[in-house]
Amino acid sequence: MGIKLYGHPFSVPVQRVIACLEEKHLEYEFVVIDIISTDQHKQEPFISINPFGQIPALEDGDLKLFESRAITQYLANTYADKGTPLILKDPKKMAIVSVWIEVEFHTFEETASKLSYELVFKPMFGKTIDEAIVEHNQEKLGKILEVYEARLAGSKYLGGEEFSLADLHHLPIINYLYGTKTKALFDGKPNVSAWCADILARPAWAKVVERMKHITEK
Amino acid sequence: MGIKLYGHPFSVPVQRVIACLEEKHLEYEFVVIDIISTDQHKQEPFISINPFGQIPALEDGDLKLFESRAITQYLANTYADKGTPLILKDPKKMAIVSVWIEVEFHTFEETASKLSYELVFKPMFGKTIDEAIVEHNQEKLGKILEVYEARLAGSKYLGGEEFSLADLHHLPIINYLYGTKTKALFDGKPNVSAWCADILARPAWAKVVERMKHITEK
Ligand SMILES: N[C@@H](CCC(=O)N[C@@H](CS)C(=O)NCC(=O)O)C(=O)O
Ligand SMILES: N[C@@H](CCC(=O)N[C@@H](CS)C(=O)NCC(=O)O)C(=O)O
Repeated sequence: MGIKLYGHPFSVPVQRVIACLEEKHLEYEFVVIDIISTDQHKQEPFISINPFGQIPALEDGDLKLFESRAITQYLANTYADKGTPLILKDPKKMAIVSVWIEVEFHTFEETASKLSYELVFKPMFGKTIDEAIVEHNQEKLGKILEVYEARLAGSKYLGGEEFSLADLHHLPIINYLYGTKTKALFDGKPNVSAWCADILARPAWAKVVERMKHITEK
Repeated sequence: MGIKLYGHPFSVPVQRVIACLEEKHLEYEFVVIDIISTDQHKQEPFISINPFGQIPALEDGDLKLFESRAITQYLANTYADKGTPLILKDPKKMAIVSVWIEVEFHTFEETASKLSYELVFKPMFGKTIDEAIVEHNQEKLGKILEVYEARLAGSKYLGGEEFSLADLHHLPIINYLYGTKTKALFDGKPNVSAWCADILARPAWAKVVERMKHITEK
């Protein structure tokens, strides 16, 4: 039966799952759910996998999952011996990884996703950017990245000395924001920008970018 | 050294951690951080534990953690043999628990916390309730609870047949909303209201309520 990922290549949480699948060297089938021009994500059969009607969703044999960060944690735990570990065995070290997984969701994404919506997705769909929202969230993100700068002064990655889910979860939004003026916020911070350069250069992330192009062209 | 929890008894994420400590039968010291009348949470020594300056934070020996859901996962993993398990060993079953942990954070809390802010915290601090926000979020919460109703038709708890972190994480907000008119949304749904009655009646939750009173009176 194998792994099936349902999603759209533009979606940040979908890219997060693809990045994880590539780091783990797992084979999977990508099933396009076109949330832009249809509402197939609000109908059967999709809502039998995710009753909230959102992408991504994943099937692994008879297991049906949704929520990108639940999926990445499942893949990292279940396929622990394949590809990059992404999680740590020591419970105290893993607890620190979990803290930064929560920071990404609660603090980083909350602000960064407003910027990617304004600066990436609105132009993509011919909508007008709201500069007040951009300015407000750039200021907020600047403060968040100051905490990241201090954290990354003392450790190579957010969760510790190893690349983990805590870093991986950031990749899709950082990749989008690097194509916008918000990149300047990262450039001004040496530890943050070295970290971004490092994680964006991972071979698995290059494969995500490649696959997304390929899926988009079909 | 033991466990030290930093927080304020009114805080939803702090109560989430206390609920977990009580389920696990762990001893801990509660250190009040008064975020209401001081800004000690934005200063040293607190920001050495949480550089984002938010409660709760927890110390266990030399380990410093923040983000309530990272703390509960750490406690459940590290003290696996004490008290209620709260997590599952089987990776496929645990993956389902993780999905509902994410649903609580991404979907439930996002909406429910707007209602508790309007209907519980604003009156507490003498502010005026915005009825338009209440109405909008009651409608959203109603739709979310319909999905919960269907889920709880097929399984006793959100993550499966056992009480887990997925249920526990909901307790503080449900407890607050049960003191407001939003309770009617739950009452209209038999599976949801049976689930709420069940989890609110847990002895560990009764202890949380008791402790909060006690701390508040001091
Ligand atoms: N927290 C979820 C977010 C899922 C999400 O917001 N998906 C969006 C696409 S990026 C979606 O399906 N939107 C359609 C809708 O909500 O109707 C995750 O990480 O998986
Ligand atoms: N996602 C965090 C939320 C923490 C949070 O929002 N804490 C609030 C109190 S309920 C706080 O410290 N607010 C003070 C501030 O942000 O300045 C968690 O679950 O621990």
